[in-house]
Amino acid sequence: MLSPALVLLSGGLDSTTTLAIAKSQGFSCHALTFDYGQRHNAELNAAKKIAQTMGVKSHTVFKLALDQFGGSALTDKSIAVPDFQAAATAIPITYVPARNTIFLSIALGLAETLPAQDIFIGASSVDYSGYPDCRPEFFTAFNHLANLATQSGIEGRPFTVHTPLLYLSKAQTLQTGIALGIDYSLTVSCYQASEEGLACGQCDSCMLRKKGFEDAGLADVTRYSKA
Amino acid sequence: MLSPALVLLSGGLDSTTTLAIAKSQGFSCHALTFDYGQRHNAELNAAKKIAQTMGVKSHTVFKLALDQFGGSALTDKSIAVPDFQAAATAIPITYVPARNTIFLSIALGLAETLPAQDIFIGASSVDYSGYPDCRPEFFTAFNHLANLATQSGIEGRPFTVHTPLLYLSKAQTLQTGIALGIDYSLTVSCYQASEEGLACGQCDSCMLRKKGFEDAGLADVTRYSKA
Repeated sequence: MLSPALVLLSGGLDSTTTLAIAKSQGFSCHALTFDYGQRHNAELNAAKKIAQTMGVKSHTVFKLALDQFGGSALTDKSIAVPDFQAAATAIPITYVPARNTIFLSIALGLAETLPAQDIFIGASSVDYSGYPDCRPEFFTAFNHLANLATQSGIEGRPFTVHTPLLYLSKAQTLQTGIALGIDYSLTVSCYQASEEGLACGQCDSCMLRKKGFEDAGLADVTRYSKA
Repeated sequence: MLSPALVLLSGGLDSTTTLAIAKSQGFSCHALTFDYGQRHNAELNAAKKIAQTMGVKSHTVFKLALDQFGGSALTDKSIAVPDFQAAATAIPITYVPARNTIFLSIALGLAETLPAQDIFIGASSVDYSGYPDCRPEFFTAFNHLANLATQSGIEGRPFTVHTPLLYLSKAQTLQTGIALGIDYSLTVSCYQASEEGLACGQCDSCMLRKKGFEDAGLADVTRYSKA
């Protein structure tokens, strides 16, 4: 029997690649998507379609009102999503406080219930160096916490948090995914995609994605709102 | 100016005492309560009343559909809440997978937004020895994670997770709270309290509370459904 794994699936390029990697490693995959008050509903629709297309065992869409916090351009509608920030050394305004901690905690609870000992998240410390919760030391600390926090952990069935994209550039991620047969036109990365999933082509996330296709020498299959 | 702190407030005895302790230590307190599909709505109402009575600066009631997980008698309506389990060495059926990890993660996100560097949680490793996420090593690991996971943490404004009840028995907690002037008749601990906040007097939580009043030599001000 295949081992079950829980994969965080946003509907974007990275998480879709992560799902394909988990499948290729022989895991029977469950998907978890957060509906967290993000501006881009198109991402949610993409996640549902990808989960279906890639044959996950179950798909949980978890409603989480992070927009109560405010303070981030991704969830606070009073803050504009900026165009590409050339100097990406500072923490971007699209940072959502403690987002990956919250996402992984809920994933941990769901994983313990399924049960699944393996959790996959498509974070990259290369592309998102400005986010504290995309760094390797964060995931190491979370994995340590996970095994102290849970019945499974203390009973000797430890969790493993897998971050297969952690050291990959966007181009390397795309090359990996293409080799695994992913149709990237299904994925939505744009921070302000239209309802139909059309990308703006201007935000940080669009620029990173565009550059990824270029660097990988691949045709950009993204559907943009402007031709 | 008083330092701001975020206090997790369930409406029960422990979290109410924790709020009083945080206030007594000179913090200006914000409260966070989770509406997580628990059976006992009376606890939520108690939390609102206590927050008001104790003059918190803000009170966030965060909706969190943990009942999607199932697997615990506290959130899964198909599992009965058991009467007092004499041999409490095993992990109780009222354990909710990764609950404190999830609660603290969301608290961390809210704290970063407020901003507040101090987070208080009323966990006790004495009374809840069966819960993996009530042990000292869990909180140490979470505090470590919090400072890797956040903008504040990596910019040198570290978080402190305070667990003032961690080594206190229920009786000691009650004595502390009484000394701080808490009216415990406002608090609801019962896992299956009535809408009006009347306690069953039979569940684990009721038994622990009852014993606490006895051990402390205090009159039990709990309002029970059975006289």
